[in-house]
Amino acid sequence: MLFLVRMDVHLPIDMPAETAERIKLLEKEYAAGLQLDGRWKELWRVVGEYANYSVFDVADNNALHEILGNLPLFPYMALHVTPLASHPSRVTSTRVNTPQPIPSAKEQQS
Amino acid sequence: MLFLVRMDVHLPIDMPAETAERIKLLEKEYAAGLQLDGRWKELWRVVGEYANYSVFDVADNNALHEILGNLPLFPYMALHVTPLASHPSRVTSTRVNTPQPIPSAKEQQS
Amino acid sequence: MLFLVRMDVHLPIDMPAETAERIKLLEKEYAAGLQLDGRWKELWRVVGEYANYSVFDVADNNALHEILGNLPLFPYMALHVTPLASHPSRVTSTRVNTPQPIPSAKEQQS
Amino acid sequence: MLFLVRMDVHLPIDMPAETAERIKLLEKEYAAGLQLDGRWKELWRVVGEYANYSVFDVADNNALHEILGNLPLFPYMALHVTPLASHPSRVTSTRVNTPQPIPSAKEQQS
Amino acid sequence: MLFLVRMDVHLPIDMPAETAERIKLLEKEYAAGLQLDGRWKELWRVVGEYANYSVFDVADNNALHEILGNLPLFPYMALHVTPLASHPSRVTSTRVNTPQPIPSAKEQQS
Amino acid sequence: MLFLVRMDVHLPIDMPAETAERIKLLEKEYAAGLQLDGRWKELWRVVGEYANYSVFDVADNNALHEILGNLPLFPYMALHVTPLASHPSRVTSTRVNTPQPIPSAKEQQS
Amino acid sequence: MLFLVRMDVHLPIDMPAETAERIKLLEKEYAAGLQLDGRWKELWRVVGEYANYSVFDVADNNALHEILGNLPLFPYMALHVTPLASHPSRVTSTRVNTPQPIPSAKEQQS
Amino acid sequence: MLFLVRMDVHLPIDMPAETAERIKLLEKEYAAGLQLDGRWKELWRVVGEYANYSVFDVADNNALHEILGNLPLFPYMALHVTPLASHPSRVTSTRVNTPQPIPSAKEQQS
Amino acid sequence: MLFLVRMDVHLPIDMPAETAERIKLLEKEYAAGLQLDGRWKELWRVVGEYANYSVFDVADNNALHEILGNLPLFPYMALHVTPLASHPSRVTSTRVNTPQPIPSAKEQQS
Amino acid sequence: MLFLVRMDVHLPIDMPAETAERIKLLEKEYAAGLQLDGRWKELWRVVGEYANYSVFDVADNNALHEILGNLPLFPYMALHVTPLASHPSRVTSTRVNTPQPIPSAKEQQS
Repeated sequence: MLFLVRMDVHLPIDMPAETAERIKLLEKEYAAGLQLDGRWKELWRVVGEYANYSVFDVADNNALHEILGNLPLFPYMALHVTPLASHPSRVTSTRVNTPQPIPSAKEQQS
Repeated sequence: MLFLVRMDVHLPIDMPAETAERIKLLEKEYAAGLQLDGRWKELWRVVGEYANYSVFDVADNNALHEILGNLPLFPYMALHVTPLASHPSRVTSTRVNTPQPIPSAKEQQS
Repeated sequence: MLFLVRMDVHLPIDMPAETAERIKLLEKEYAAGLQLDGRWKELWRVVGEYANYSVFDVADNNALHEILGNLPLFPYMALHVTPLASHPSRVTSTRVNTPQPIPSAKEQQS
Repeated sequence: MLFLVRMDVHLPIDMPAETAERIKLLEKEYAAGLQLDGRWKELWRVVGEYANYSVFDVADNNALHEILGNLPLFPYMALHVTPLASHPSRVTSTRVNTPQPIPSAKEQQS
Repeated sequence: MLFLVRMDVHLPIDMPAETAERIKLLEKEYAAGLQLDGRWKELWRVVGEYANYSVFDVADNNALHEILGNLPLFPYMALHVTPLASHPSRVTSTRVNTPQPIPSAKEQQS
Repeated sequence: MLFLVRMDVHLPIDMPAETAERIKLLEKEYAAGLQLDGRWKELWRVVGEYANYSVFDVADNNALHEILGNLPLFPYMALHVTPLASHPSRVTSTRVNTPQPIPSAKEQQS
Repeated sequence: MLFLVRMDVHLPIDMPAETAERIKLLEKEYAAGLQLDGRWKELWRVVGEYANYSVFDVADNNALHEILGNLPLFPYMALHVTPLASHPSRVTSTRVNTPQPIPSAKEQQS
Repeated sequence: MLFLVRMDVHLPIDMPAETAERIKLLEKEYAAGLQLDGRWKELWRVVGEYANYSVFDVADNNALHEILGNLPLFPYMALHVTPLASHPSRVTSTRVNTPQPIPSAKEQQS
Repeated sequence: MLFLVRMDVHLPIDMPAETAERIKLLEKEYAAGLQLDGRWKELWRVVGEYANYSVFDVADNNALHEILGNLPLFPYMALHVTPLASHPSRVTSTRVNTPQPIPSAKEQQS
Repeated sequence: MLFLVRMDVHLPIDMPAETAERIKLLEKEYAAGLQLDGRWKELWRVVGEYANYSVFDVADNNALHEILGNLPLFPYMALHVTPLASHPSRVTSTRVNTPQPIPSAKEQQS
């Protein structure tokens, strides 16, 4: 089940640089683990802002909140969650909300 | 180059059903073509709304505007475009802004 | 899985009274069915407004969108969906996202 | 009489962890008492946010303000209250604003 | 129990003058009745706008919604309701939420 | 001449309790004086918020600003002022902007 | 007593040109009269918008509402009123809220 | 050339009183000079707020920014500038953007 | 003197295609003339929207309003004007706020 | 490829003057370099605000984010990016979205 999440980071101006670096490192490791196991499907920087748009693929609402609430940067972020559904005009509709078979290059670019 | 686009559709209440169906069919075909050639990368329904979030992968700003301005539903939609950049915490950073090699199942789920 | 949904109804001023009545009747029947099978858990009027707050208990995002998109009043409403999760301070935490055992009167009022 | 309340918590970044824990514990106990006596009817976490949506069942406006104003987290929260009324499409309309008889399983799922 | 209500009227530009006059007359009579029986306590025009701020004194949320939903201008208005409680700095605190004894002129102006 | 004023109080989190109590006490005394001489006509708590809606009856704009600017809590509040006028549907229209004769109980509740 | 008023005009797209011209002419005459008797003190166009900022000098709130409510363009405008008071840093403070003596050229430009 | 400017002052709560007084005194002197030479044409307090609406008459945009950027309170204010043009319904249209002949009392009040 | 202007076009859905084309053609010619004489310095499409950002170089506020108010699309647009000043970090500061000679084609494309 | 960027600067009130001056100097040098190589095409001050509107001409979204994220004032600014496309009514359309040779000082100031 997919969710679009926007995260805006607001680190306190007076946070010591080492503290900030440590938290960001933890965040990066945390994000890497979730990307590798397929739950954090997409992660993009919003151009010009200390913010990202992400897509999560999770079992349910509780699973998503547990992931987001444990983000090392959570106390310093504003988050907004938008639930997503399958779109009827999606060509490969099987890609939403189900395990996704890897498309062949031909399918992808035909 | 990636862009997140939100589209909110507002068809006139008094548009004849056939007209609406015809425009939606054209939209669907138009969207299918762009998905198949890789420019309309993602297409999700916003739950509960006649709206979608999409991700486009295009050569530049002009290319994106040409795609969006030619949407059959364009006169009936409010669109908002957010430019996206690569995120430093992205595990497979090569997936942004470049042709994407197809990941093996092992890479995807390791 | 629970979602809070706010619905604001905007019927066209010039819609014939019979048409409006017919759509409202369909809406009422549709809502009754979903309440009886447990998916439309709560339904409250917002005081002073032609609007409601509702709670839905559904299998996933797609199921919710299918329910909302088929509302007879859907073309005349603005909807906003907020995904809900279990709250750690909830006394009877089993009531969220799982089939709910019927509490005894004693539990409810002790 | 029912009210929907949204609470957004903003703890100061520099609040000592023990202070925060102590206040949260007090909040939890306070919330438990009100849930058990039936005044705090519903309590849900907003996914991805340090916020909740709650439903209160109270005698009048003054009773609600007394409950909310005494929340241990009150000085650190933004609250917004929406008064609710019975909805004419509610199947079991007796559930709003009156003591609620416990529905049988059959009624609930028929 | 008191509520502050703001009402903004938006009559359709092309509504025939007689229709508008008839609805306004009904509204005036309806408002007069509620003022005389004490439920519509205050009624002020917002300077420069076709809008009013009103204070209602009603038994509960349902009673308020019934009053507002039956306003002849209801289909042409946007309403917003704010529940009010007694204020601890109010000198004559008995005036809120209870039948109000008529103050003597001396009390009022001392 | 009447004005509706909304006041939202934002005391600094780290203000010593005694300081806060002292300012609130001054505010209460200040408010009492203005209520007794008839200039601060109404004072209601907004349910769930550290805020109030008030109605002032003053000679002119300057008089209102002098009253508001001298509130002991002024440096910690956001204020918003709405000028009010007589409403043509007001039954006892003489109550606005002129000394108000005391209505008899019969008039009030007939 | 001074008020700043912003007026935004929204004429219906399909209003016949003659009707629009007639209303605008009435508006112009009405505005001229109020300027000449000193109540409509200032009148400026907002650059690029069919809107104006105006300053009115009136006896009280009711007087202002009567002026604004009788504007020929009133049904086609959104108005917002801001009450103004004397500013302590104003050099010629006597100009606010009182009959204004005509300053000599020397005073104005010294 | 005329501009309407709104200034909202936000002095830090913990600024020493003498510092605040000193800055306000500088502001007052600065404002007096600009009023006397005709560039700061109007200065009004917004009722109930630590804010003002002002009208400036300056040679061009750069001149206005230089004036505003040098306000002693500039670091503590939010400013918003609206460019003004002559209004076609202005009776004494020569008063905008040109040296203004002093109207006689008769013209002003006829 | 420079101004940034955003224009959002909202043509009525039911405007005949020929009418729309005629107005757009007039707009294009009008815009061409102002670009050639140097007053309409920049003109960009907002990606995905029927809107533009433009920069105008004009003598004063009145000149800008005259240009904008005469746009053939003016009745169908929402405009917002932001006055611009020279920026101290601008390398070639002489380009702002001075009369601009019309560049030759060679300069423009070198 | 062009982007309009608005930057609003919010330096902490208690930042030492030397620190602020040092950062501003770095910002100025950084901005100068990007202007000289043609990537920071336009830079204007918003009148009355510590803010600017800028136009950037960059290769792609990533290039823009790298430029903006490295601004010495980045931690103290709110940025908003709007992607721009060629406008069909632009007379010299070749100026948009093509590689721009660095103009000589003579061309720039003629």
